[in-house]
Amino acid sequence: MRTLIKNAWILTMDEQLTTYRNGMVLIEETRIAYVGEANATLLERADEVIDARGGILMPGMINTHAHVSMIPFRSLGDDCPDRLRRYLFPLENECMTASLVYHAAQYGILEMQQSGVTTFLDMYYFEEEVAKACEALGMRGVLGETVINFATCDTTAPYGGLAYGENFIKEWQGHELVTPIIAPHATNTNEAWALQAAHELAVKYDTLVTMHVAEMDYEMEEFRTNYQMTPIEYLDSIGVLSDRLIAAHCIHLNESDMKLMSEKQTRVAHCIGSNMKAGKGIAPVKEMVASGLAVGLGTDGPSSGNTLDLFTQMKTAVYAQKTHYKDRSLFKAEEIVKLATIGGAKVLRMEHEIGSLEVSKKADLVLIETDSLNMFPIHDPYSAIVYSANASNVDSVWINGRQVLKNKQSIFNQKHVKESLAKEMQTFRQRAIERAQAL
Amino acid sequence: MRTLIKNAWILTMDEQLTTYRNGMVLIEETRIAYVGEANATLLERADEVIDARGGILMPGMINTHAHVSMIPFRSLGDDCPDRLRRYLFPLENECMTASLVYHAAQYGILEMQQSGVTTFLDMYYFEEEVAKACEALGMRGVLGETVINFATCDTTAPYGGLAYGENFIKEWQGHELVTPIIAPHATNTNEAWALQAAHELAVKYDTLVTMHVAEMDYEMEEFRTNYQMTPIEYLDSIGVLSDRLIAAHCIHLNESDMKLMSEKQTRVAHCIGSNMKAGKGIAPVKEMVASGLAVGLGTDGPSSGNTLDLFTQMKTAVYAQKTHYKDRSLFKAEEIVKLATIGGAKVLRMEHEIGSLEVSKKADLVLIETDSLNMFPIHDPYSAIVYSANASNVDSVWINGRQVLKNKQSIFNQKHVKESLAKEMQTFRQRAIERAQAL
Repeated sequence: MRTLIKNAWILTMDEQLTTYRNGMVLIEETRIAYVGEANATLLERADEVIDARGGILMPGMINTHAHVSMIPFRSLGDDCPDRLRRYLFPLENECMTASLVYHAAQYGILEMQQSGVTTFLDMYYFEEEVAKACEALGMRGVLGETVINFATCDTTAPYGGLAYGENFIKEWQGHELVTPIIAPHATNTNEAWALQAAHELAVKYDTLVTMHVAEMDYEMEEFRTNYQMTPIEYLDSIGVLSDRLIAAHCIHLNESDMKLMSEKQTRVAHCIGSNMKAGKGIAPVKEMVASGLAVGLGTDGPSSGNTLDLFTQMKTAVYAQKTHYKDRSLFKAEEIVKLATIGGAKVLRMEHEIGSLEVSKKADLVLIETDSLNMFPIHDPYSAIVYSANASNVDSVWINGRQVLKNKQSIFNQKHVKESLAKEMQTFRQRAIERAQAL
Repeated sequence: MRTLIKNAWILTMDEQLTTYRNGMVLIEETRIAYVGEANATLLERADEVIDARGGILMPGMINTHAHVSMIPFRSLGDDCPDRLRRYLFPLENECMTASLVYHAAQYGILEMQQSGVTTFLDMYYFEEEVAKACEALGMRGVLGETVINFATCDTTAPYGGLAYGENFIKEWQGHELVTPIIAPHATNTNEAWALQAAHELAVKYDTLVTMHVAEMDYEMEEFRTNYQMTPIEYLDSIGVLSDRLIAAHCIHLNESDMKLMSEKQTRVAHCIGSNMKAGKGIAPVKEMVASGLAVGLGTDGPSSGNTLDLFTQMKTAVYAQKTHYKDRSLFKAEEIVKLATIGGAKVLRMEHEIGSLEVSKKADLVLIETDSLNMFPIHDPYSAIVYSANASNVDSVWINGRQVLKNKQSIFNQKHVKESLAKEMQTFRQRAIERAQAL
């Protein structure tokens, strides 16, 4: 199957940030066979020709940190202090089932696809259910089972996620769309041996580790008091700070932390929407990038950030950095689009396969229409994406060469996915109401 | 004409924040005749019945600071330092014509209506063209001609806006949809006598004044150096700080400024998106509200903030306040929705006519659909609006009793408005390219 997309304003996001004002992309099976200026001879080679009508064609966006099955929590207790312990942990333990994880993952994946996300990193429970949802909906996922120091909805003992996670990795490794990894919850919710064991799993199966790092004030305080170290220094001291680690959040880093991370090539998932909504602070992305760290954007769970699109994250990230450093010229729009595409690919160690539109890379693409009122005029397409666009401007999405969104419509049965989730959520809803009343 | 909206999740935004889970609103001509629980007898009284299908029905949103005719500038030089003097002032003087102001205003008004804004405050040039656009498109506008210390695109001498503005006020005062006001540009781009003259005009015609206040670092420095005062103290010292003044931005206020403003009942238009994008800082909204100031939200011009919707402003405002004060429980979602509705109405001195859904108020309403994936689940409708929604969720809009948006489609000829603007913009585009190349 060969699909030609014509009449596109192409942002390749390659090393030189090459753009084509009236360009074409040829997709052959799962990969990109051509990207460049319009070329009439390509029309003959294509089985299918799609007219982009001057829209912006760019690499699929990469969400480097999510808990997508937390859809049921969206809009619950948003402004409540210590929501993690008041709502999230208890409701997860009471109500999260394999089936709820599966249906919520399906829902969240459809929502991400509609907003132009083609790859996401997830950490949660029953992670094989998220993998099945990726398979069912043609989504690219980098998925890690959570490891934590208490019994959870899918394990009967503390740290059950280690064994669960190893089985999950063995079962899904080598899959076309799913990359299994391992996900210790956070620096302070795992003992050192468990963090080390998780990291060793990653080494053993040549995969990645992700966890929450330097996110919480009390986490920083704990490490200062107990170890006279920062969380980063602590991770380094136990041998877990490596190029296999994707550290999510990293709000509270100092210069020497960033130097250490740069030496070890540790990667960062920056989740600005979630961080600001929770009043946690603004991560020093300017310095991270200057230190040579790979940085991507993450939505966090739909309970923490509510939206699963990277338009919200791009705009919030650039707003936050310019404000934090009081410099309107800091992070040009194109640099933010980089974080959402090739930057995210580097974080996921997938930059040779995805993140830019280049020949022989996987065909993960997003077409953004420029017909809607908010998309005119466009003096600069990167500016239009970062400052003017929102998720509803996404017109078409391809993942691994397959078109999953056409004219803003999913190719999957969205109504069925939503109804199934609503049905699965009945107990959750009841418990959520009881818990809110008890607070 | 009587229109009944049924099956709506109504957020009245009245003093008690009354909500109706399955409510009805009856519109009679230009006003609200009923708002409350479903009542079958109302069905008989209606000429037209609209099924809200469980969507969220709330007051039309109020944009308290805009320069809507700056649509041509959108995405131009976004990350450029001192863009005001490098792009905005010169291009305005070279290219802004009455016709361009009119067509850009039409475009921006359609865009605002689509995103649920039913009233906006505007300050620009050729302001009667913005008024005509409001009239043509059934939009509620509070419009002020700019006064500034140099000749502009619509005046041949410095401060020409004073005479221009007085004529404009005389011509449009008493209009059903348009409220003419006067708009000195900023504290430091007008001499004291001109600010006083503008304020006297407002007294003479019993209307309002708006200007940029405490927005720029160099503005703060100027007043410190020249007068040993803050801009607020300066305005007070020349008699301009009054309940007629809507001070836009107010990023840099100290405690005593806010006390002064509170005594004088000066109002604030908070433009967080524009302020963060320009790296200017985060206004102390928490303290403003605690001081009893009337605060509304503003998008600023589409060159400064790119989007004209208040969803972006609500989310950014709440993110910024929680982060600035490191408190996730600060500004509950409902308090942010207040800023976008009744808060904005108070800023515009129109709280007895608009800003909440109450019997006898003007019928300015917005229906937000809850069918899209990003709008499920809804444990709290205010949270859904502030944290989950975006402008594309707006389904229907009524202004002054007239439905201007139906099923996300404008009742006006949007294609024609866009094409007319594109045609008008040709010279502007050429000059913008030349200027970018020359920098």
